[in-house]
Amino acid sequence: MKVGFIGLGNMGLGMAANLLKAGHEVTVYNRTASKADPLVKQGAHFAAQVADACRGDVVMTMLADDPALEGVVFGGAGSNGNASVLGSLSKGAIHISLSTISVALSKKLTAAHAERGQRFVSAPVFGRPEAAAAAKLVVIACGADDAVSACAPLFDAIGQKTFRFGTDPADANLVKISGNFLISCVIESLAEAMALVGKAGIDQHQYLDFLTSTLFAAPIYKTYGAIIVDKKFEPAGFAAPLGFKDNRLALAAAQDLQVPLPIASLVYNRFLTLLANGGEKLDWSAISQLAAKDAGEGQKSA
Amino acid sequence: MKVGFIGLGNMGLGMAANLLKAGHEVTVYNRTASKADPLVKQGAHFAAQVADACRGDVVMTMLADDPALEGVVFGGAGSNGNASVLGSLSKGAIHISLSTISVALSKKLTAAHAERGQRFVSAPVFGRPEAAAAAKLVVIACGADDAVSACAPLFDAIGQKTFRFGTDPADANLVKISGNFLISCVIESLAEAMALVGKAGIDQHQYLDFLTSTLFAAPIYKTYGAIIVDKKFEPAGFAAPLGFKDNRLALAAAQDLQVPLPIASLVYNRFLTLLANGGEKLDWSAISQLAAKDAGEGQKSA
Amino acid sequence: MKVGFIGLGNMGLGMAANLLKAGHEVTVYNRTASKADPLVKQGAHFAAQVADACRGDVVMTMLADDPALEGVVFGGAGSNGNASVLGSLSKGAIHISLSTISVALSKKLTAAHAERGQRFVSAPVFGRPEAAAAAKLVVIACGADDAVSACAPLFDAIGQKTFRFGTDPADANLVKISGNFLISCVIESLAEAMALVGKAGIDQHQYLDFLTSTLFAAPIYKTYGAIIVDKKFEPAGFAAPLGFKDNRLALAAAQDLQVPLPIASLVYNRFLTLLANGGEKLDWSAISQLAAKDAGEGQKSA
Amino acid sequence: MKVGFIGLGNMGLGMAANLLKAGHEVTVYNRTASKADPLVKQGAHFAAQVADACRGDVVMTMLADDPALEGVVFGGAGSNGNASVLGSLSKGAIHISLSTISVALSKKLTAAHAERGQRFVSAPVFGRPEAAAAAKLVVIACGADDAVSACAPLFDAIGQKTFRFGTDPADANLVKISGNFLISCVIESLAEAMALVGKAGIDQHQYLDFLTSTLFAAPIYKTYGAIIVDKKFEPAGFAAPLGFKDNRLALAAAQDLQVPLPIASLVYNRFLTLLANGGEKLDWSAISQLAAKDAGEGQKSA
Repeated sequence: MKVGFIGLGNMGLGMAANLLKAGHEVTVYNRTASKADPLVKQGAHFAAQVADACRGDVVMTMLADDPALEGVVFGGAGSNGNASVLGSLSKGAIHISLSTISVALSKKLTAAHAERGQRFVSAPVFGRPEAAAAAKLVVIACGADDAVSACAPLFDAIGQKTFRFGTDPADANLVKISGNFLISCVIESLAEAMALVGKAGIDQHQYLDFLTSTLFAAPIYKTYGAIIVDKKFEPAGFAAPLGFKDNRLALAAAQDLQVPLPIASLVYNRFLTLLANGGEKLDWSAISQLAAKDAGEGQKSA
Repeated sequence: MKVGFIGLGNMGLGMAANLLKAGHEVTVYNRTASKADPLVKQGAHFAAQVADACRGDVVMTMLADDPALEGVVFGGAGSNGNASVLGSLSKGAIHISLSTISVALSKKLTAAHAERGQRFVSAPVFGRPEAAAAAKLVVIACGADDAVSACAPLFDAIGQKTFRFGTDPADANLVKISGNFLISCVIESLAEAMALVGKAGIDQHQYLDFLTSTLFAAPIYKTYGAIIVDKKFEPAGFAAPLGFKDNRLALAAAQDLQVPLPIASLVYNRFLTLLANGGEKLDWSAISQLAAKDAGEGQKSA
Repeated sequence: MKVGFIGLGNMGLGMAANLLKAGHEVTVYNRTASKADPLVKQGAHFAAQVADACRGDVVMTMLADDPALEGVVFGGAGSNGNASVLGSLSKGAIHISLSTISVALSKKLTAAHAERGQRFVSAPVFGRPEAAAAAKLVVIACGADDAVSACAPLFDAIGQKTFRFGTDPADANLVKISGNFLISCVIESLAEAMALVGKAGIDQHQYLDFLTSTLFAAPIYKTYGAIIVDKKFEPAGFAAPLGFKDNRLALAAAQDLQVPLPIASLVYNRFLTLLANGGEKLDWSAISQLAAKDAGEGQKSA
Repeated sequence: MKVGFIGLGNMGLGMAANLLKAGHEVTVYNRTASKADPLVKQGAHFAAQVADACRGDVVMTMLADDPALEGVVFGGAGSNGNASVLGSLSKGAIHISLSTISVALSKKLTAAHAERGQRFVSAPVFGRPEAAAAAKLVVIACGADDAVSACAPLFDAIGQKTFRFGTDPADANLVKISGNFLISCVIESLAEAMALVGKAGIDQHQYLDFLTSTLFAAPIYKTYGAIIVDKKFEPAGFAAPLGFKDNRLALAAAQDLQVPLPIASLVYNRFLTLLANGGEKLDWSAISQLAAKDAGEGQKSA
């Protein structure tokens, strides 16, 4: 397929490379143009403007947050003088949004593209940069059936599995946001359990090994359990301000739907505490240190 | 080995049967004697008194809670006129406590047995009655190395895997209690996520399928996710008052160690709410209904 | 003084009337013009346009929320075609914002007025409509010293007491917002205490009488205690959606300052629960019913 | 009246002195006998044994906690070889319990005294040692009407006002416990508000002055507001471990009644955090430092 790709950060770089490997014709755009160099060497076309990445059947966007995506799609303040995706995409063409954005923006994009006869598919992904590079992402795809089906080869190129949750693009974003919320629950609950067994003098590695070889034998417990026990919060795989952003996306979606999420509120306060105490460079799982500190870690024992 | 077994409830019955199958000589005692009948048919000796179950190398206890175990071990109010385990066990013999009891009681038992030259091994188990019947329990064993090693054949007979956490018996209980705490975190977090995606109209079964085939591919998410989505809270696999008891064991252990556990406090209030509103017959995972009710489930939509 | 007054709701009407009584020359504007009628009968000038209320030394605004005030001050979407306050006010003239708005908007207004050589005083008020009508409001005033001093006669006309918190207008808004946060804490704490003593069968009126004649002898405990005990949530003195808005203003200000407010988070979830269950017409203190419901009020006793 | 007084701590000393001043014949007992000296000089009889304080119409007890009171009333482990109040008091005589004890113990005492034909009045008090010395306590009295009425002169001697809440002694304890819970809510809410306005640079003294001269003009806000703003946590007027004990009394009473108290749970975790971090010598209001620390107090600003 002929596809544009906008946003060549840690995640986007791997995804675009995998699209090339799968044989697609890819035109890449990034605000800082030099990021495109390795992809161009691998055969990608270089787009000097956003509009240049919007001339194919599909344009994929992988950007940091709502304002970044809004700038690219709607133009205006965040556009850096570029023509917008909205103004550049031809009728019937598809915009695939891969970013973790708000449910509200997803609804706004759905309406805006529909108005111009363009198609919109929301397809946020689960996975860290390593997974993006290895084409091992999990893709959540929502949108009109024909549009999502048309994009299947692209999803196959970047991920290990695609889940479809119906035709409303915003649902994909809610699934992504609620998934990240569940991960934050794993972090906080492991933090509390580790503070407890650790203060009793139980070996935390052994405890984690027990958990993850029995009832909690899931990737997420293994990954975050190891980070928490080893306190490997630097370099940040997913920095605290980003984790906080996703926590607020969950709270915002829940507020719109009038759904109280007490654990999300608790995690919200953990993030505020972490950031207020100098943790902005740490991995988001560093909120786990707060349970340990509250339990007196670092204090002299009586 | 020559082993006594005290406590033939849903869990104990399966465990004692598996000890017999493995070729051990088992003497069984239960307050309601008739419960022993099927085991006697399978070759067990019948103990009319607690003391009769204490004449071998090992006596195993599997009882409902702290007071039940205290009555049997120390005699007194809860003993029903029986001689106590403490008074009946010979020097060097081992008491294996399989029950989910408090860290404080475990410490008390450790001291009491040591005083009499008896050995104490704490070995609480993870698994529901089906797992007990199938010898698929996970055993957490703590105590003096030689004592735990001596009991290994017994653990092999009842479980699929044994984890050892050092020589302090109370540590096994803390691992068990904190494990149940982590399960309660899974229940509450799934409840909140399901309330959120459910109110947005997303199919909860499909959502659960996504979770448990990717990041959250752990037995505990599958088991409880299904119960929560299907609202199958009756018959209770593990009744709310028992879940509440375990939640309080976690809070009590944490209080003694001065470790705040905010999610445990949240779950504590969920249990109080559930029980105050008529939920004492439901499975403990029925606390998940509260997140849904707070989100207005059952309300007419605007 | 020659003063314009914009916003003739329940609060503004009483305030503007008191300015007239105190002998000031008042020009009134309201989007729904007929609301101005009683004031015109009392001697006010009628302003057909926002600009007409901006020709004196001072213009006061008393509007519902951030968007309403932004529309009037900056024009644009919310302006109904009116020239903006910003464009109409002469150099050196003072804009007094009486509304409960966000700290962020207050900062934005401060900068915008300064840019045009206008002066900005933030002066949110405590008190219900009855207090506004009786000139019994408590005024929190912040801004440049000379500006606030110049406005003193106006504050005297509408309130019983004025508190000055320095020269940054946004501080007045934070004081107002945090004051409302403290009121919400009184409501929630009384709700919990009442649920407790009420379930024990203690007379709640007698209990409230005890509280408010001793340690808690403050107006706020008397006012809200009576509403809570009598469940007089209709008609709403201050409706739940407005209380929720103020709760979110507190959380927003605290987020910007990186200050966790756990009780505010708890109250946030109470509001979501109340609104998700049909409480949008009730007084904000109806969040107190949730503590009672969680405790099983309405359930048959065992 | 002829009255015994057991427990001459900071509170009991002042109360017994005021009983003497009011002309009652007082026999005083304290475990550390020398504490009685100043009272004997003021005309009190000295009781070498608990039983010696139980020979009059009334015996009053003012002890630190449940175990201390249980030891004195029931004898046994905590009795130091003394005959018990229960065994020493004559039929028809009254035991007035002034201590802050659990609802459960109050019920047990009610039953035990009734069994022996003795009368039991529960009369916990509000007020610090200064108030006890000045006869300014607030007394909450519950028990059989004739018994409470008979004790009225004693309450008048020690307090400024007596509130009666019916005939069940345990109700007095619940009123006391819930009152202390409400005080803890004031501390926590002020702590959060102060963290917020303080981080914004607003003068906290001025803010407190505003609060306590308007909506929150109650003694409790003045007292604790000043301690919090000035961080005067030493010497402790009411030490953190005692505050924590009362918090747990509230949670225990609420658990028995199945009433969730989310703010009490929050305060519970604050106390654990304070004690785990070396705060056991500080006033209970030092939990207010935690909100400030979470907000980054002491951190270098960005």
